[in-house]
Amino acid sequence: MIIMGGGLLTDLYELNMAASYLRHGMTDRATFSLFVRKLPPDRGFLVVAGVADCLDFLTGFGFTGAELDYLERTRRYGRDVLDAFERIRFTGDVWAVPEGRVVFAGEPVLEVTAPIAEAQLVETVLLNHMTFQTSVATKAARCVLAAGGAQLVDFAFRRAQGIDAAMAVARASAIAGFAATSNVEAGRRYGLPVAGTMAHSFIEAFGDEEAAFAAFAADFPTGCTFLVDTYDTPGGVRAAIAVIRRMRLSERIGVRLDSGDLAELSRQTRRMLDDAGLHEVKIFASGGLDEYAIAELVRQGAPIDAYGVGTRMGVSADAPSLDSAYKLVACGERPVMKLSAGKVTAPGAKQVFRGPSGDVVSLRDEPSPPGHRPLLEPVMRAGRRPAAPEPIETMRERCAADIAALPAPARALRDPQPFEVRRSERLAELGNRVSAEIQAAHAGGPPSGLPSV
Amino acid sequence: MIIMGGGLLTDLYELNMAASYLRHGMTDRATFSLFVRKLPPDRGFLVVAGVADCLDFLTGFGFTGAELDYLERTRRYGRDVLDAFERIRFTGDVWAVPEGRVVFAGEPVLEVTAPIAEAQLVETVLLNHMTFQTSVATKAARCVLAAGGAQLVDFAFRRAQGIDAAMAVARASAIAGFAATSNVEAGRRYGLPVAGTMAHSFIEAFGDEEAAFAAFAADFPTGCTFLVDTYDTPGGVRAAIAVIRRMRLSERIGVRLDSGDLAELSRQTRRMLDDAGLHEVKIFASGGLDEYAIAELVRQGAPIDAYGVGTRMGVSADAPSLDSAYKLVACGERPVMKLSAGKVTAPGAKQVFRGPSGDVVSLRDEPSPPGHRPLLEPVMRAGRRPAAPEPIETMRERCAADIAALPAPARALRDPQPFEVRRSERLAELGNRVSAEIQAAHAGGPPSGLPSV
Repeated sequence: MIIMGGGLLTDLYELNMAASYLRHGMTDRATFSLFVRKLPPDRGFLVVAGVADCLDFLTGFGFTGAELDYLERTRRYGRDVLDAFERIRFTGDVWAVPEGRVVFAGEPVLEVTAPIAEAQLVETVLLNHMTFQTSVATKAARCVLAAGGAQLVDFAFRRAQGIDAAMAVARASAIAGFAATSNVEAGRRYGLPVAGTMAHSFIEAFGDEEAAFAAFAADFPTGCTFLVDTYDTPGGVRAAIAVIRRMRLSERIGVRLDSGDLAELSRQTRRMLDDAGLHEVKIFASGGLDEYAIAELVRQGAPIDAYGVGTRMGVSADAPSLDSAYKLVACGERPVMKLSAGKVTAPGAKQVFRGPSGDVVSLRDEPSPPGHRPLLEPVMRAGRRPAAPEPIETMRERCAADIAALPAPARALRDPQPFEVRRSERLAELGNRVSAEIQAAHAGGPPSGLPSV
Repeated sequence: MIIMGGGLLTDLYELNMAASYLRHGMTDRATFSLFVRKLPPDRGFLVVAGVADCLDFLTGFGFTGAELDYLERTRRYGRDVLDAFERIRFTGDVWAVPEGRVVFAGEPVLEVTAPIAEAQLVETVLLNHMTFQTSVATKAARCVLAAGGAQLVDFAFRRAQGIDAAMAVARASAIAGFAATSNVEAGRRYGLPVAGTMAHSFIEAFGDEEAAFAAFAADFPTGCTFLVDTYDTPGGVRAAIAVIRRMRLSERIGVRLDSGDLAELSRQTRRMLDDAGLHEVKIFASGGLDEYAIAELVRQGAPIDAYGVGTRMGVSADAPSLDSAYKLVACGERPVMKLSAGKVTAPGAKQVFRGPSGDVVSLRDEPSPPGHRPLLEPVMRAGRRPAAPEPIETMRERCAADIAALPAPARALRDPQPFEVRRSERLAELGNRVSAEIQAAHAGGPPSGLPSV
């Protein structure tokens, strides 16, 4: 969704720095590289997401009159700076790894080259979209891996971290392979399949499970799922069976288990349904699920056909953020890097080449090593998108193919081994040279680390 | 911010249930109670936040033409239901605990009484706002507790879970006692003080710390903070001292440490500044901080004047969601409850009374026990707010007073002991009676638990 303006969607220091660049006539094109420094525990890969929202933001980027009025009232900036802000648009180039692609720590996923003030001002929003959406797409892809072919539905809306977070979760989980979302607005906005069952309150409002199920089936004759755990699960299953038989329901009928020992209850429920001849009735499970809980249910052979996965996926509960960074790597013709303890960056605009035995992070203009293909693609030139946005289905297929191609240790849910990532010789040499130059220029002490990939 | 519409900001099952209620003529007023079932680990209290966004949503609630068109295209609902959706507004009453107030597990923080379809449709958004914003306000309050009087600045925008999450984080952390935010749009939207320093890229763009600091000080002569860890911290501090002396800077000047051993570096920096006679120059620390890291720095006596607290606060990293619920507790004149394993709810509209030795959860119409005061207040009647929105400053004072009044074990960062919460006799009796009635009505087996508070 393209919104014009958004210049205040940033940290104050970005505005301050941009003001300073503009006042000092610093209009050199700078390149910033967005990457994840380190994978969180129990992550063997990341699934890229968030690029489309970044491009929407950059397309509409600027300051509205109301935004400029606010800045004027703060008295922080002079007329010269406010005039410059009024004129500013994003005129830069962006390279990005397409959404759905699998990446690893230290690999640039998005690079911006633009006049330095523009590139600086957009940092906060680009980091926000890429960090959050990539962490959720990754979590969702792990759920898909764990489910071994069972269908997954996004149930995260109610406990996502905000309303637009819920939209991003629905989209990111669709990229990762979820079959549907419960989020109706996301269904509309992104064209996703929408699914839902019923809540305990529905049963309680009728006061009686059979009455509630019968009313619901009458209203939704082309498919419905009965929630059976409001009072006690076997009793709920009996009520569902009675209604299914009495109303001769046959199309897309299921029961949902939402509490208790799901492995045991699903077996018991399956037996009861099968004994009633209702082999086609599906079992749907939900309630505090994530990839670990799903993997355990699959391991126990629970006869569950589909899972509703909510909060823990939607906030990426065990890794709710990533150690992401958006770092200046070139300014004008000059490659730059920082040497802060534990946060050393590698200089220069980059490319990542994927080969059969691992990835190579290179300088942007290096040729592809034999048998490798580049991951970063130009997605914006001079502030314009060269191509129409990609459909989610394409991202979803890319994600499935990338994950299928991963070595098994990188796919493991616990203690995974990420795919190998090396630096090209030219990148390593440049890092060493720039680091040595900075050390020579600063008598203040040795730098605290060597450049990582 | 009131937006008209938003009827699709919901889970599909809410629409399905509402459609069914409407078709079956079920227009009884229902009461839903929103509460947190259990505190996350290391939480001795919660700070309520999110009520204002809930009321904004309810005020504008309805279906826009575009939303109805989408629903019509899904062919899920007949003309009768779409017409009913077109007319629907939120006409109910809301009671809530005011923002900034401290609450505990099992205490209703918001209760909605409305025709059941309306109350059902708004569940998803109400849970979303209250769950997320309460978890972040709580996390932020813990940072304030840990900082022992040092100032805190919200740096969470870049890795918050979405753009509106970042706005909510700035607001919630202000309620919890943060002094400022780096988030400029949140500053504008909520009238919050905005603060910021400079990034490593600024230093790198100039290529030289002294040149960068001098340029920045020339542009912001009424106050600036120099980032000193781009290459090595003592060298950066020396450069800052040189610029401060040469330019005779005196107003609101600071240095920011963003990496390395902050306790040791802050002591070293303080000595260097003091040796240069710059006693008034402040030390600002940032980089992966949360309440635990701040408490450790304070314990070590680190001479840090202010902290930038970002990602871990903004996503509430160790508890990124709460076990929140929005449960039907009364339907018409009938109190209701569910008995699902581990998720038993207590029936009836409620009030919470706070007394010197703990809280009492009661039925709404019970009198206050002596020396207690009610926490839930009417905040919306017949779909309208009786009063103007409260200023954040009022919420902030309430939060500070409530936390100061907590027993020390409830305030502990690790293994806290929450304040005592009891149920009134009348609530306990009602729970037992309704539970027994449900058990008598369901031959399917015993219920799996007793009602919790």
